[in-house]
Amino acid sequence: MKGGQVREEPAVDAVVVGAGLAGLAAARGLEAAGASVLVVEANGRVGGRTMTRRIGGVSVEMGGQWVGPGQRRINALAEDLGVEIFPTEVPGRTVFHERGRRSEYEEGGDPPFADPGAASEVQEAFEALSRLAAEVPAETPWTAEKAWDGQTLETWKLGQTRGAGARFYFDLAVESLYACEPRDVSLLGVLADVASSGGFGGLFEIEASAEEHRFVGGAQELSERMARGLEGRVVLGSPVRRILQNDAGVLVESDVVSVRAGAVVVSVPPALRGRIEYEPALPAVHDGLSQRMPMGAVIKCHAVYDAPFWRASGLNGRAESDTGPCKITCDNSTPGDDAGVLTGFILGSDARRWGQSPAAERKRAVLECFARFFGREALHPRGYAECDWGAEPYARGGYAGVPAPGFFLDHGPALQEPVGRIHWAGTETATRWNGYMDGAVESGHRAARGVLSALSAGAGYHPRTDSDGRDLSRGRPRVGATGTGG
Amino acid sequence: MKGGQVREEPAVDAVVVGAGLAGLAAARGLEAAGASVLVVEANGRVGGRTMTRRIGGVSVEMGGQWVGPGQRRINALAEDLGVEIFPTEVPGRTVFHERGRRSEYEEGGDPPFADPGAASEVQEAFEALSRLAAEVPAETPWTAEKAWDGQTLETWKLGQTRGAGARFYFDLAVESLYACEPRDVSLLGVLADVASSGGFGGLFEIEASAEEHRFVGGAQELSERMARGLEGRVVLGSPVRRILQNDAGVLVESDVVSVRAGAVVVSVPPALRGRIEYEPALPAVHDGLSQRMPMGAVIKCHAVYDAPFWRASGLNGRAESDTGPCKITCDNSTPGDDAGVLTGFILGSDARRWGQSPAAERKRAVLECFARFFGREALHPRGYAECDWGAEPYARGGYAGVPAPGFFLDHGPALQEPVGRIHWAGTETATRWNGYMDGAVESGHRAARGVLSALSAGAGYHPRTDSDGRDLSRGRPRVGATGTGG
Repeated sequence: MKGGQVREEPAVDAVVVGAGLAGLAAARGLEAAGASVLVVEANGRVGGRTMTRRIGGVSVEMGGQWVGPGQRRINALAEDLGVEIFPTEVPGRTVFHERGRRSEYEEGGDPPFADPGAASEVQEAFEALSRLAAEVPAETPWTAEKAWDGQTLETWKLGQTRGAGARFYFDLAVESLYACEPRDVSLLGVLADVASSGGFGGLFEIEASAEEHRFVGGAQELSERMARGLEGRVVLGSPVRRILQNDAGVLVESDVVSVRAGAVVVSVPPALRGRIEYEPALPAVHDGLSQRMPMGAVIKCHAVYDAPFWRASGLNGRAESDTGPCKITCDNSTPGDDAGVLTGFILGSDARRWGQSPAAERKRAVLECFARFFGREALHPRGYAECDWGAEPYARGGYAGVPAPGFFLDHGPALQEPVGRIHWAGTETATRWNGYMDGAVESGHRAARGVLSALSAGAGYHPRTDSDGRDLSRGRPRVGATGTGG
Repeated sequence: MKGGQVREEPAVDAVVVGAGLAGLAAARGLEAAGASVLVVEANGRVGGRTMTRRIGGVSVEMGGQWVGPGQRRINALAEDLGVEIFPTEVPGRTVFHERGRRSEYEEGGDPPFADPGAASEVQEAFEALSRLAAEVPAETPWTAEKAWDGQTLETWKLGQTRGAGARFYFDLAVESLYACEPRDVSLLGVLADVASSGGFGGLFEIEASAEEHRFVGGAQELSERMARGLEGRVVLGSPVRRILQNDAGVLVESDVVSVRAGAVVVSVPPALRGRIEYEPALPAVHDGLSQRMPMGAVIKCHAVYDAPFWRASGLNGRAESDTGPCKITCDNSTPGDDAGVLTGFILGSDARRWGQSPAAERKRAVLECFARFFGREALHPRGYAECDWGAEPYARGGYAGVPAPGFFLDHGPALQEPVGRIHWAGTETATRWNGYMDGAVESGHRAARGVLSALSAGAGYHPRTDSDGRDLSRGRPRVGATGTGG
């Protein structure tokens, strides 16, 4: 678009598109192995779907924030970068709000459903899902039972549960974990995810669990430190528009810079892969892939108070409700800070509906929600902020890409498969903790290994001259004209 | 990308993005009402998903080609443009190929399934689907029974059919009609489509029906004649990259031209809407929509012979098979021409798999398929051509966008809904014959009406000056900087 202002950068071994956790981890891995890199990022900041903001005098997390002890890659990275973690445990009772009735229950107990049979029904459904997931190979979910990719999770739920209470709670778990409705996601997609990260029930409970941690200074700090280590090799505010490849190398064109390389790591969610133009065009299965993994829908809302007033009532800040906009909340205060932070999630269908309301109306509804759960003090925060990830053009939603039915059977094998000199990263391509920060790091490391192996096999950037001595690698490599492809 | 070469065009009342049937119909409607237009098209040709090519001395249709008598908009347009239609009836028996066994059956008869109960099972399933569809309002399918958008058509099929024969034939019908697998599509999506176009069984049989017509000179001829009527107002080979809007108007930026207008009609499938950058960014529900209607997958294959040799054996050129790559074929010869044309469709999952094979291998497999159905003469065509629509970057698949489960409930109302000065067209937005050429024309007319009504309400292009007398409408309208939006 801004052709006249594009700066041509010296050629590097590899360009990385996207300065989220995956892209920066890839760039770091490449540099550590001696390759030269340039990272090109669309947003004016690094961190991707992690974003830390100051609101009402405190730091809050607008995106991904939790890590668990089983996630060894993200924990190792944090340790390496000197970013510390702290436990998020808040003792107290959880608010449960169903059919207009508010109650409370102790941690480790069963939610006090209106229907007394619901708790065991939910437990059985979670266990059944985990049992099925145990049969799915996390690295190749497309080799599992085909029928699992032919149905939505909604269909499976209806067959597995009877009561309205169990169904509401199952929906809440799915919305909380995937920021989508059970109808939006393939059963196999969920099974693959559970297989990549442990049992389903555990995932849902994990937010309230003593095992969960957050990062001191916020999750974005990891990306910021990685970017500092790559100083001068990260270009911000420069959406990549086109990636060309031929036998000389790749050319990555973005709003601010244009750069040639031996390889490129595209480290964005599948839905954003599809926003880039490729020459030659991507094979149909790769383009199709980018059409079949839409992002989830989430508006993450924070209210900052002078103190975590709910704790005085013995509450832990978690609420579970069948009434939105925020059907799930948590205490997101930072230890050592006086302020109290309540965080609510507007998810899936609710996010799509509430995203269309005026901001002031949405804020009022969120605070009224908090007040229903925790009392009228919730109506008067000293700070409020929210992020509708679906309105972020370089995220297109959150938390992550959601595999629609049929996605894995036809497109799964292509998720990680390079296309010539193009390698893919991003948490959606991970085989462990897919959809989490840990998966992002795994995917970055894997892509870096793939690039290094291709470079050592001679796939570097090779300026070429034609029979007339013209340097074919200068100017746009018109692949159609030279008859070469990836 | 080619900033330096972009030509600034004089402002018009409306820009139309996409010179397919919908876009051209919209432009024509706008001009007829006195509005000035400019059509900007990514491909080097008009016609979108209709494309006529010369192969082996005859014209063949690489894309959409059939029209039916109930499709009054496309028929009226053809009449208006002086494009004639001809019937496609070929008398003779249909080849039926199941479980490796080849048989033939008379038109109007039942396919000779290995399982004798399959025919009535199929009939019942088609009828049941049509009955359900009768309960779906074609204009507002999201108001129908919610559960129908929570399941795949695959789930419904498994509940409705028992035998392998019935299921194969049901799959074949779905693949033929939507170029996708039953697992790829929401039950409600199919019901909405059937509601917009008549009964399901009728749709599937229509290709072999005496009622079906083709266009003399090919379906692309319609677009070519419309473009001729718009001479000088259609810019080809110029992908639109960015659409900006503020209170002065819209600015449409493409590779070749940049143009200001009062409104823009984006007349591309939802999956391609998502390839354009919008400033301000689209509301989340609109961006989400463009992520949740992936294109079907089809490779359309033609073999041209000296004569339609199968007719001598009493065959009509149609084959139905459970073995690919082409599970469905037809006689696509042109009356009055000596040559015989067999057309085979590689659909859905098959298209994704076969799209990854070398072209020579795919051609051999297609011809061997034709030979199994019609005899060894099929192995030696005088011409052969195919189009993998999924490999076309400005189509991203075919025939049309496929609504995934959950699409209609959350995004349906936004399909036609303008975003400020941006109006939407394309067959996917039609309420009658959605997915067909007729729907494309309907959508173009509807979008033109929307633009005209907005223009007459004062939404034209208004150059503005700020307090310092600078013309804000010159240069890039940085919406963020001026604080104005759509």
